[in-house]
Amino acid sequence: MKQIIIVIVLFLLTLPSFSQNDSVFVRKIYDEALEKGQAHENLRYLCKNIGARITASAEAEMAVRWGFELLKSYAFDSVYLQETKVPHWERGTTEAAWISNSSNQYLKLNVLALGGSVATNGLIEAEVVVVQTIDELKTKSAKEIKDKIVFINQAFDQKFINTFSSYGHCYPIRANGASEASKLGAKAVIIRSLSTPTDHFAHTGVLNYDETIKKIPAAAISTKDADALINWYAKEKIKFSLEMDCKTYPEAISYNVIGEMKGTKDNKIITFGGHLDSWDVGEGAHDDGAGIVHSIEALRILKQLNYKPNHTLRCVLFMNEENGNFGGNTYAQLAKQKKEQHIAAIESDRGGFLPIGFDVRGTDEQLKLVQQYQKLLFDYDLLKFKKGYSGVDISPLMDEYPEMIQIGIAINSQQYFNYHHSHADVFETVNKRELELGTAAMATIVYLLDKTLE
Amino acid sequence: MKQIIIVIVLFLLTLPSFSQNDSVFVRKIYDEALEKGQAHENLRYLCKNIGARITASAEAEMAVRWGFELLKSYAFDSVYLQETKVPHWERGTTEAAWISNSSNQYLKLNVLALGGSVATNGLIEAEVVVVQTIDELKTKSAKEIKDKIVFINQAFDQKFINTFSSYGHCYPIRANGASEASKLGAKAVIIRSLSTPTDHFAHTGVLNYDETIKKIPAAAISTKDADALINWYAKEKIKFSLEMDCKTYPEAISYNVIGEMKGTKDNKIITFGGHLDSWDVGEGAHDDGAGIVHSIEALRILKQLNYKPNHTLRCVLFMNEENGNFGGNTYAQLAKQKKEQHIAAIESDRGGFLPIGFDVRGTDEQLKLVQQYQKLLFDYDLLKFKKGYSGVDISPLMDEYPEMIQIGIAINSQQYFNYHHSHADVFETVNKRELELGTAAMATIVYLLDKTLE
Repeated sequence: MKQIIIVIVLFLLTLPSFSQNDSVFVRKIYDEALEKGQAHENLRYLCKNIGARITASAEAEMAVRWGFELLKSYAFDSVYLQETKVPHWERGTTEAAWISNSSNQYLKLNVLALGGSVATNGLIEAEVVVVQTIDELKTKSAKEIKDKIVFINQAFDQKFINTFSSYGHCYPIRANGASEASKLGAKAVIIRSLSTPTDHFAHTGVLNYDETIKKIPAAAISTKDADALINWYAKEKIKFSLEMDCKTYPEAISYNVIGEMKGTKDNKIITFGGHLDSWDVGEGAHDDGAGIVHSIEALRILKQLNYKPNHTLRCVLFMNEENGNFGGNTYAQLAKQKKEQHIAAIESDRGGFLPIGFDVRGTDEQLKLVQQYQKLLFDYDLLKFKKGYSGVDISPLMDEYPEMIQIGIAINSQQYFNYHHSHADVFETVNKRELELGTAAMATIVYLLDKTLE
Repeated sequence: MKQIIIVIVLFLLTLPSFSQNDSVFVRKIYDEALEKGQAHENLRYLCKNIGARITASAEAEMAVRWGFELLKSYAFDSVYLQETKVPHWERGTTEAAWISNSSNQYLKLNVLALGGSVATNGLIEAEVVVVQTIDELKTKSAKEIKDKIVFINQAFDQKFINTFSSYGHCYPIRANGASEASKLGAKAVIIRSLSTPTDHFAHTGVLNYDETIKKIPAAAISTKDADALINWYAKEKIKFSLEMDCKTYPEAISYNVIGEMKGTKDNKIITFGGHLDSWDVGEGAHDDGAGIVHSIEALRILKQLNYKPNHTLRCVLFMNEENGNFGGNTYAQLAKQKKEQHIAAIESDRGGFLPIGFDVRGTDEQLKLVQQYQKLLFDYDLLKFKKGYSGVDISPLMDEYPEMIQIGIAINSQQYFNYHHSHADVFETVNKRELELGTAAMATIVYLLDKTLE
């Protein structure tokens, strides 16, 4: 008898926690995504018929209407807009930069104002001071920096396997470079683009002004131009010339776009989404058109397969991740106000590349809960289950619901920062099958969480 | 005492089988590959200064000399050529195909003769008969096929997660389509390209004539053209027109190119490599320039890190994988003749995309031996360890040494058949970091096997 019990216990210990039905259903999700997927055509529409869609632009408004009509066309249980205030910054029509030397040689640079930057108010020119990092900038005296244009040259550390780590290390030069340089009296700050390769694309992105310090113009130049500048600077003093007429306008009104399948068991909510806004260059294909079509397609596939969820499955196209996260904040505040019960949130905001697993933001137990799917998903190349960050849009929701589980779709990161926030982020760089595998990964994790979570 | 023993046994059972030193060394491999890697520049040279290099072409001869000089430049213990006979087939200068209908409308097609095809001897024209698969072709009568041109339209099954499975299922139409159609008296056979996307590229590749049956011309048209042909064919009878002057010449002499680091403990050999030849279109970037630079770079990195191998580490640039595997066969025969001791072989022939793990061709115990590295390699995104195929070049070696372990580097397969055997397989489609991660994966598995195997 004891032996039998031991055998039974061992058997139970080795039993996969998913059922044969789950395995069959996941296969159906992948078949639908790979054979009849609409993600690629939806992304083509968003990129080519709408394009770049910075918050408060006409294109962002078009994207809201497109998302709303597309969700309605799938006849989900409920499709609606959620109003949110949003910031309004525009690049303007003038943006130019060059360097020159004592021999009156000139080099025009590929430049993009950082998002939120103030204008130069005409052409400004000053001697360049180069620093490698924010920390080096902080060691400088006001005498060294005053009336100069500071160039911060910190490059991606190529040793990180995950390029988001390289990005994280460089992030402070974009976020804080302007205020740190301004403290020392600089005229403007220029940064090396936060980008993996050495090429001609400048990469924009939000900066955070310290409101107590004078705001100075800030821009990024391409990595190739950064190398050229460093070469010139090594030989002699150089002058930087910059003109930008970007401008911040009063806050505007925009919307999160939401589609739902109602829960059959309760009103608890599983949120999943990406962000509908993008920067104002390129087409926002990987950032985050991919996450948008991943999410819409996940809900479409589950409906198409006639799945009846236990909990409410809510697909959210968040507005304004890039420069303020107003949409994500509004979503969390309204959830709390309405006393909604949120049990899980999943975000896709790492591009349309090959999905490789799931990053779990939560407790050890929540990680283990997700790891039990690992064996089921091995054949789908979803292989990396670990603790990690979930996403900016759903982060405020976790502040309101600290008990919830949050998941970020983990995606091959190697090429993301080739395109991110630049003119290079266009539809053609997204592979159809990799995008479709992303939609299937999203649908699968939503399905498995709905089945698993109480 | 008993308790202590149990604790010790449990401790030993949970000990990772790799050491802290291994962990440090693997990190050094990745640092070298990602920060000071030469794979990308080597691939650029091979693709841009040499280009497509079909066996017995002037470019294949240049590639042999390039590989030999590059290996010598790294001052390995031994660098040498291994003579092998090779087949010699040339595409010629005329290659054209179109379809036409009763209204004298014409559609020119993107076409490539299959490797080894006979010529048409001038323009040939015939009515088209469409079949979907080889099996359907076999159900046809000679009356239906005689003097017709057969078009086999089998498309990739998009449901397979790994595209090599889709390729495997379609492979018979390319390999055997001509002989099966000839049995029934067809004038020629045309196939839908073995390719994942629907686009304008035709994809070539070897065919296998049944020597007992009359050889008829065989070619592939692009997937877009295949769809167009099917549309025309649905409406009325159509005529196919084809002219190709490809030709097979007498066998020639070429070389495998070999570089070695000698073992400090014994003369047992770990072989690793890819193939130096390519098809005669594109630049052979993913197939298999990537495997070539993965392998050369793996040996360079291990030498650069001053590693003293236990066994002999032998990097082999195989000649003629694409149409005959003469180089792989020669290598295995000479190994046996010389009574070499071969304990392991690793191949990279799945492109320069993101490596995701290792396919082990061997016993359960050999799979387990490799799986013990899994924890060590988790942070490097090498996640999928399973049984699978190793590679064509090293396959004859396994026939001679059935006890050996063979490994294929498993690589994200989603985009491989967008480029494979077509004009699209060019340097620009290879991402630098993904290529470098492939070199690190190769160096790492060679290192770990050298440390582990007796």
